[in-house]
Amino acid sequence: MSPKYVFSFHEGDGKNKKLLGGKGAGLCEMTQIGIHVPPGFVISTEACLACLDSGTGELPDGLMDEVREHIQAVEKATGRVFGDPDNPLLVSVRSGSALSMPGMMDTILNLGLNSSTLQGLANQTGNERFAYDAKRRFIQLFGKVAMGIPDEEFDRALQAVKVRSGAYSDVDMTVDDLREVCELFRHVVAELRFQPFPEDVWEQLTIAIKAVFNSWMGKRAVDYRREFNITPDKANGTACNIVAMVFGNMGNDSGTGVGFTRDPATGENKMFGEYLVNAQGEDVVAGIRTPKPIQAMALEMPNLYKQLQELRDTLEKHYLEVQDFEFTIERGVLYCLQTRNGKMNAAAMVRTSVEMFEEGLLNKEQALLRINPEHLEQLLYPGLDPDFQATPVAQGLPASPGAASGKCVFDADLAEHLGRQGEKVILVREETKPEDIHGFFASQGILTSRGGKTSHAAVVARGMGKPCVAGAEGISVHTADRLAMMGDKVVHEGDVITIDGATGNVYLGKIPTIEPEFSPQLHTLLDWADQNARLGVMANADTPEDAAKARTYGAVGIGLCRTERMFNASDRLPIVVDMILADNVESRQEALDRLLPIQREDFKGILQAMSPYPVTIRLLDPPMHEFLPFETELTQQVADLRDLRQTVSNAQRVLNTLKLVDPGIVSSLVEKPEGLKMRLVQLDVAVLDATIKDKELMLQRARVLRETNPMLGHRGVRLGITNPEIYKMQIRAILEATAECVKENIEAHPEIMIPQVCSVAELKWVKGYVDEIREEVENAYGLKLDFKFGSMIEVVHACLTSAQLTEVAEFFSFGTNDLTQATFSFSREDAENKFLPFYQDAGIIPENPFEALNVTGVGRLMKIAVTEGRAARPDLKIGICGEHGGHPASIRFCHHIGLTYVSCSGPRVPIARLAAAHAAMTQLNYDY
Amino acid sequence: MSPKYVFSFHEGDGKNKKLLGGKGAGLCEMTQIGIHVPPGFVISTEACLACLDSGTGELPDGLMDEVREHIQAVEKATGRVFGDPDNPLLVSVRSGSALSMPGMMDTILNLGLNSSTLQGLANQTGNERFAYDAKRRFIQLFGKVAMGIPDEEFDRALQAVKVRSGAYSDVDMTVDDLREVCELFRHVVAELRFQPFPEDVWEQLTIAIKAVFNSWMGKRAVDYRREFNITPDKANGTACNIVAMVFGNMGNDSGTGVGFTRDPATGENKMFGEYLVNAQGEDVVAGIRTPKPIQAMALEMPNLYKQLQELRDTLEKHYLEVQDFEFTIERGVLYCLQTRNGKMNAAAMVRTSVEMFEEGLLNKEQALLRINPEHLEQLLYPGLDPDFQATPVAQGLPASPGAASGKCVFDADLAEHLGRQGEKVILVREETKPEDIHGFFASQGILTSRGGKTSHAAVVARGMGKPCVAGAEGISVHTADRLAMMGDKVVHEGDVITIDGATGNVYLGKIPTIEPEFSPQLHTLLDWADQNARLGVMANADTPEDAAKARTYGAVGIGLCRTERMFNASDRLPIVVDMILADNVESRQEALDRLLPIQREDFKGILQAMSPYPVTIRLLDPPMHEFLPFETELTQQVADLRDLRQTVSNAQRVLNTLKLVDPGIVSSLVEKPEGLKMRLVQLDVAVLDATIKDKELMLQRARVLRETNPMLGHRGVRLGITNPEIYKMQIRAILEATAECVKENIEAHPEIMIPQVCSVAELKWVKGYVDEIREEVENAYGLKLDFKFGSMIEVVHACLTSAQLTEVAEFFSFGTNDLTQATFSFSREDAENKFLPFYQDAGIIPENPFEALNVTGVGRLMKIAVTEGRAARPDLKIGICGEHGGHPASIRFCHHIGLTYVSCSGPRVPIARLAAAHAAMTQLNYDY
Repeated sequence: MSPKYVFSFHEGDGKNKKLLGGKGAGLCEMTQIGIHVPPGFVISTEACLACLDSGTGELPDGLMDEVREHIQAVEKATGRVFGDPDNPLLVSVRSGSALSMPGMMDTILNLGLNSSTLQGLANQTGNERFAYDAKRRFIQLFGKVAMGIPDEEFDRALQAVKVRSGAYSDVDMTVDDLREVCELFRHVVAELRFQPFPEDVWEQLTIAIKAVFNSWMGKRAVDYRREFNITPDKANGTACNIVAMVFGNMGNDSGTGVGFTRDPATGENKMFGEYLVNAQGEDVVAGIRTPKPIQAMALEMPNLYKQLQELRDTLEKHYLEVQDFEFTIERGVLYCLQTRNGKMNAAAMVRTSVEMFEEGLLNKEQALLRINPEHLEQLLYPGLDPDFQATPVAQGLPASPGAASGKCVFDADLAEHLGRQGEKVILVREETKPEDIHGFFASQGILTSRGGKTSHAAVVARGMGKPCVAGAEGISVHTADRLAMMGDKVVHEGDVITIDGATGNVYLGKIPTIEPEFSPQLHTLLDWADQNARLGVMANADTPEDAAKARTYGAVGIGLCRTERMFNASDRLPIVVDMILADNVESRQEALDRLLPIQREDFKGILQAMSPYPVTIRLLDPPMHEFLPFETELTQQVADLRDLRQTVSNAQRVLNTLKLVDPGIVSSLVEKPEGLKMRLVQLDVAVLDATIKDKELMLQRARVLRETNPMLGHRGVRLGITNPEIYKMQIRAILEATAECVKENIEAHPEIMIPQVCSVAELKWVKGYVDEIREEVENAYGLKLDFKFGSMIEVVHACLTSAQLTEVAEFFSFGTNDLTQATFSFSREDAENKFLPFYQDAGIIPENPFEALNVTGVGRLMKIAVTEGRAARPDLKIGICGEHGGHPASIRFCHHIGLTYVSCSGPRVPIARLAAAHAAMTQLNYDY
Repeated sequence: MSPKYVFSFHEGDGKNKKLLGGKGAGLCEMTQIGIHVPPGFVISTEACLACLDSGTGELPDGLMDEVREHIQAVEKATGRVFGDPDNPLLVSVRSGSALSMPGMMDTILNLGLNSSTLQGLANQTGNERFAYDAKRRFIQLFGKVAMGIPDEEFDRALQAVKVRSGAYSDVDMTVDDLREVCELFRHVVAELRFQPFPEDVWEQLTIAIKAVFNSWMGKRAVDYRREFNITPDKANGTACNIVAMVFGNMGNDSGTGVGFTRDPATGENKMFGEYLVNAQGEDVVAGIRTPKPIQAMALEMPNLYKQLQELRDTLEKHYLEVQDFEFTIERGVLYCLQTRNGKMNAAAMVRTSVEMFEEGLLNKEQALLRINPEHLEQLLYPGLDPDFQATPVAQGLPASPGAASGKCVFDADLAEHLGRQGEKVILVREETKPEDIHGFFASQGILTSRGGKTSHAAVVARGMGKPCVAGAEGISVHTADRLAMMGDKVVHEGDVITIDGATGNVYLGKIPTIEPEFSPQLHTLLDWADQNARLGVMANADTPEDAAKARTYGAVGIGLCRTERMFNASDRLPIVVDMILADNVESRQEALDRLLPIQREDFKGILQAMSPYPVTIRLLDPPMHEFLPFETELTQQVADLRDLRQTVSNAQRVLNTLKLVDPGIVSSLVEKPEGLKMRLVQLDVAVLDATIKDKELMLQRARVLRETNPMLGHRGVRLGITNPEIYKMQIRAILEATAECVKENIEAHPEIMIPQVCSVAELKWVKGYVDEIREEVENAYGLKLDFKFGSMIEVVHACLTSAQLTEVAEFFSFGTNDLTQATFSFSREDAENKFLPFYQDAGIIPENPFEALNVTGVGRLMKIAVTEGRAARPDLKIGICGEHGGHPASIRFCHHIGLTYVSCSGPRVPIARLAAAHAAMTQLNYDY
């Protein structure tokens, strides 16, 4: 015996979208909660699968008998009869699967019309033109979606009639015109499909149902499912909805409209929408007539407006979510045709969450869960004014959110110089390097013409919460000429541009921006989130300013303070370079001695800004050569300088000769300051020689420091062990800063974090420095210091020996960027520029593992480290720093394995707070 | 009650080295198996620990009572009495711990001598001079080792007497001289230690025992234990051995000597040794008299020679090992003083193993286990003739074993050119790159002035089994001038040099070498090894010649055939470069079409050479830029070429001007061919321009291909997926080669191996190529192909998802070099040049993980991969390729986790075969 395939809207289970599809379940649910929906029924997805499984495309046995029964029920409810020439019932037929999915069959309206019922419809409505118009629409829709005839074929016929009758638009056509159109349409079908248009209404219905079911395996639907990775377990056929037609165009007591239960732009608790009197739904869409705001209905149709208000209340109370619904009024009777959750901007989501809690509609948990944490991003960064029309001159990758305007500047030094004078600047470079960092600090945003979303520029900008557009290929930067080509426009240094890190667009001139709004509702919501979360949320911050800003976002500490950012600041970089170029321990120590007080002040400022929360300070991580220019660049510079020196010396020799011959010529030449040669002869060869020597020294050092794979090279703790003086200086700076805070009654909790740790022996080695310096500082200041010592966990071997690490580590912090690189053997920069995009397009890798924490490899290693580390040291504090710490799905996993906290860039802290609450409220199982 | 501390040689347990020390246990064991050892006893290590634990350095209570009892037993056995003036017993006192350990107390001889017993000794021996000689030796030894008086103090006194008496050497001193020496020595002691030399023999003995025990905590001993990482659990104090003195210098019926039970140079089953009549052991060492070969004793002392033969038989039968023993004959009585396992060269070890099995002394297992697999290395590579005296001009790192002579050549092209003409050459470079590979093939050996044991040169040379000396810092290579400075010598290209990869020495001229010997006994031994091993041993080989050679070493297949080695051969590299420089798919395909037949022939040759064993072919692994010159080099070249072009064009312009003025000058200038400027003017500027353009194109391409971390970059399967044409060409070449083998009735088993696999999706993608090409080739050749498809396991994520990989992988091969890099986040090249040596010296890392497989991280990941992979696919074949596959301790671990085979460079195959047998015969537990 076959199962029950057909469900009336009164009997279908509104929760069973898998069986009834989303649309069908919605119609059942609305019907059952007392909303006035036109009568109808759903043929289940099981019928669809049975049809497809048959191999013949035929409907399962008995299905049409069930359909007949249900049509009778609809006839009873409407008082009309399907196929009856006098009082015909017309229906719409539409597909609807569990997941909303474009590409399947569209709607067929007015099914049940044929030569005889047409007249019945004309009689019912008292409007023959209406009836013919309904029929020609039916034939075209049926022809197109059930018989596969292209729209163009029908449009051509329609056009011919309009031309002949002189009708300008559809509404100008007379009854006769429309009758003729219907005839021509029937010919089109017969000619192209070698069969007459079906006159029998049951045949119409059977064909339509089959067409719905078979559209599930149509090319567009299959492509769509593959594209969006909808696997068979999530997608099991489509249902077919058959609904009695209602008409909004039956006179001035009819109409149609759409509504939101609250204002989707602001979230205000006020119905929002628009409607048209005497119109069909498609007229609203077509935009021929201008709809009125819904509030106008209060005057025009007060009774119906009241019904609409009731509908709105019913919907919200039932769905507990802002609804976006469609309605039709047929001769004074209101029907609701569809409802779904309303799409809103983030501000509206936040406001409605808080207000719906206050109204008693939602509890706090529901209020939190209905907001996607990522959605908050638009509240946290400035955006372009959407009302301002502008055309971008170039587009790059949206590398760090936010929008900013400023003067183009082509190098970091000038950016810093102008920034200090209060100018707003955008740093524009081919690509950036760590040595550009001071330019980042001084700029409103960063624009590069090379590199991806994880290029240096992108990563640093995101970390700082500054807008960045990266890899804008339409731009070529000519630093030497102080200009850039953007598209076909020449942009000189100092010209104002605007970049939008949310879209990747670049504009000439200043575009107004809208500053982010941290509304009271957002504060309320995030407080609720904190109450529900188990994970703490800290921020990554490298300066006192960043630390202060992070607190405004609600960070409860700094999870990562990168000391190399300080090294790169322009007042320190020359000292750092001196240190690197030092060829003996003494001169290196001398440079470090100059750095010590600067670093001490840095740390003191950060500890103070974050007091009383902890500040996790990572000792120097990158390899030394990162502080020097690129080797190829230096090679080129040395070659160029030598060339210049040759030219200069030649020019001067020639000039000297000329002087002997004709002093007059010389003075006339020297008069012309613009002559290149003349400027050349004014250069001092000795100065040039000194510059060449400096550059050569730097080149030589860069060569010695050169590494084949710097990511896996002489950096982090390895550098700290082989060159102890650097780490010792940093440890001393931290502990002295702490001691000064203590003296000044500032509660300070520094945590010293060692990067790139591979095994406990390394950690113990550095702990030796710490113990030694702690004693010295405690003695010098005459007090006891309170701080923690811990390890980054970013090396696979560290994950696998975490129990041993806890012999000295009081905390762990996962560096999942490096750990991902090591787990995949993907260098992030190289991968994202070379093969990762291809991998993602081809579906070889589902998500970029540098954006979404990979569970099967990286996650499994983290789980091992957490489990074994905690087994050895139950009070071990464990966090994550780096970009995954601000990514909601990754935060969920961090909660799952029991981390203590996550740390992310300041502006992402609110997102992480909400995500942490989500993670705590909804557990996920992971398969790894 | 205190434990028993003292054990006579008759009662001590000869197996309990921990209690009795190595020396003491040996004396007990020899005594108990009936070997004639002088009577004596051992004071246990427990007594030592009790003494040290006391904190006062005093001996434990009751110990000296036990000693007295045992001295009585010795008195009884010798018929002499300790301290008796008429018939004194003299003893030796020496330390001896469980592990042989230099740095503790040396031996004290003749203890028991004082003013009165001296006369007794003179009477016993009838030789007063002997007695005084014994006494002055005793005072000096006792003073030095028990009282800490430096030898120089005694030597000065001795020298004074010799000068006064006119004695040229010690033997020229008269009785009176020696008496005076004894007196002076006693003064030295009294003056330096403020106490008289102890006259009481029991006091002498007590002091000596204490000195032995306390030497355990002496600085040298402690340093030694730290240096060699002898942890307290392995080292628990020293025993103290007290033995009755016997004298080989009591006349012509006395003597002393050393013997080996077999010839340690050849292993021949014939006693080997030498002796001196009427002499003490130290006379043999001092070399004043020339000892006679042991066989001479058969004539001189036939009875004793017979006893010696019996001793030899007893020792070997008991120890089941070749023994190195010391003996003394006192007045016709033979005493054995010490025995230990004989140190032999590898050839002798192999021969004795096989012969001792044949003689029934050892079973096969014992015969195999007594040989350290690494020891075989000296049988497998050529070595320098040890009889030839030569002084090295430079020394580098012993990077790949073997010795070779040949003409210095400074670039790979010339090396190949001369190599083809049959010249023996040594490739000498600052450092090498993959593009030098054709030079490696053509050379006898490689010498570099930069880079470590794991530089490109070292790794490739080891893989090929060619000698290499790397990083010889005393050498500077001036390629442009075609010469190198080696120390203070100028070596021109073409001069002959010799390198020794075993020591790192570099010599001028040709030094004779000894070719390796693959003796029948070695074959026998390795056959036994194969019978005992569970792991198969394959070889890494990239050419048919290597494959053929690997078979002679007993390889049962090729575990790794690196196709990039073929790409680098000089007839292919230009095609490969064309492929890389191609700016569209067509011209890239055109280059690949030229490569296809070459690769097909390569594969066919290898399959044929290895038939019927499997050949595992790894598809292209390195990133494309490895086939181009370095970017910095290209930058420099372009700058130089531009400079040259400028100079040339200037010179030509000047010349043209001169021609107008005075044609005569020009012709006279052009006559001088050595003039640089004149040669310059003959260069064609157009040709130069074309070269510059080529180089610039290459530079531009190198810039595009540049990677920050090439190790983790666009390589291996990632390249195979984004640039499918390369892998498709290689797969086609393999399958066509196989098809041709099948047609010619050659049994061929190729296994296609994909490098750098991270997840199963990649593997499935490439499997798609294979399936497609298999069908085409099978149709074209009209036959079915039999081959395997599998994955390198060298990425952490692959280890952690091995079960999924087996959906398509029929085999795994661990690439533990890359896996180690990823597990430690150490780039091998950078680590070994920058921080690993420091880490090892400081004990931060116990062993270089690139030499000895790391168990805690890499091993644990391998274990996971093996366990989960086999659970999913029980017949999964799993191997390891790369250098760990030839390292005995690593092979042991591979056996432990159940691998199917190991693969290593050809010459290491015998080492691996023996190591595989060892692994199977002796199980180890791993803690990870």
